[in-house]
Amino acid sequence: MNLVVVLVSPRNPLNIGAVARAMSNFGFTDLRLVNPYEKSFREAVSAVGGAAVLQSARVFEDLGSALHDCTLAVGTTSLGNRDLQHPLHTLEEAAPLVLPQMQRGKPALLFGSEKFGLSKEDISFCHFLVRIPTVPETPSMNLGQSVAVCLYELIRAEGPIIATPGSIPDVARNRPPVCGAEAEQITKLLIETLEVSGYTNRIVATSTEQKVRRFVRRWRLDSHGARLVLGILRQVLWKLKH
Amino acid sequence: MNLVVVLVSPRNPLNIGAVARAMSNFGFTDLRLVNPYEKSFREAVSAVGGAAVLQSARVFEDLGSALHDCTLAVGTTSLGNRDLQHPLHTLEEAAPLVLPQMQRGKPALLFGSEKFGLSKEDISFCHFLVRIPTVPETPSMNLGQSVAVCLYELIRAEGPIIATPGSIPDVARNRPPVCGAEAEQITKLLIETLEVSGYTNRIVATSTEQKVRRFVRRWRLDSHGARLVLGILRQVLWKLKH
Repeated sequence: MNLVVVLVSPRNPLNIGAVARAMSNFGFTDLRLVNPYEKSFREAVSAVGGAAVLQSARVFEDLGSALHDCTLAVGTTSLGNRDLQHPLHTLEEAAPLVLPQMQRGKPALLFGSEKFGLSKEDISFCHFLVRIPTVPETPSMNLGQSVAVCLYELIRAEGPIIATPGSIPDVARNRPPVCGAEAEQITKLLIETLEVSGYTNRIVATSTEQKVRRFVRRWRLDSHGARLVLGILRQVLWKLKH
Repeated sequence: MNLVVVLVSPRNPLNIGAVARAMSNFGFTDLRLVNPYEKSFREAVSAVGGAAVLQSARVFEDLGSALHDCTLAVGTTSLGNRDLQHPLHTLEEAAPLVLPQMQRGKPALLFGSEKFGLSKEDISFCHFLVRIPTVPETPSMNLGQSVAVCLYELIRAEGPIIATPGSIPDVARNRPPVCGAEAEQITKLLIETLEVSGYTNRIVATSTEQKVRRFVRRWRLDSHGARLVLGILRQVLWKLKH
């Protein structure tokens, strides 16, 4: 089962260990850490049963690199109103969107730091957000526990996968979905195109990159479509510059 | 919601805190501890958000007393074959057996010590056993995580989460999808861009229009996104021509 768990800036080695253990309990192995606060995460002591997952965990400097081969990025949030730019699903709703990708692609579940969660920039890498249905008074879950609950939902539903028509883009069913590296290539080229064509002045500069990144993720391109878009953008850019 | 969480001989205050936090996250309040190893469980430091649950937690000397007012006792186990005397259900199967009692009675979920789980005697108090579907190689879950997963299953099955208007925004759902006219506008502008930039020579001319039209439809743009794309294309075209 292809599923990547990405922890962005985790601070507590105990939590990293707990995440590794939950992954191990549910049969997942691909753990990635972006800029972990504790470099010594391998010492995480609570990782009973999670040792193998921790051993093979990889550290990345930025989220884009961590997602380079991922075909879907799902951000977790404890607050419903965090980011109005992104579709928000309950965990139960999200599972059928993630499960098919676990067969054919490589989806990633993103968890933010214990204190701050995912940043706006982190979220701009996501296709959609997911929320565990906690009570409004105490919405914020412990990191290890929220990972356990998310993974449980995925293996729980593993039985018959019901792909309701329309819930998953049709193309994605037959063609490999675009990976993070390709989406990021498109993002960069599109930003350059916007700059060279003079479009960028119209929108607030600081938010441009996130805006474009978010926008590209929403397209749900397959890799065939991605190559097409890349080809078009390269040609347009070449022409703009000559 | 009437549900009692009973921890039998818990050893680690951090775990007790984590249990309290998960209960708090999912709206449960009745925590009972039987013969806790650490009398000082109230100091549990990881109980962010679980303080109220810990405050009102009650300590009992034996399991019988802890269950005195409970209408159903469900033991949790990581091993399927622990006790052949008792019916064993997966968590998913168990939820519909517990839920009706949460309305009309007072069911209890029992969790054993971190090291040994529930004893044969503990299990003798149970109506049935429940097992979280972990992998055979690493069946044993962290206490706080297994409580979180069990409680999640109960609130998950409870029905649709009450979404107070505005609390769970789903931008993609609320925005009108792109209409045919807008999609066609994008198609035309994109074709023109391809021509002006010299891209069109690369692909067979006759099929270009259909190809682009199909491609644009696949994006599943909403009308906000459509306006953005139109703006970009107009600017790029303007620049290409000047």
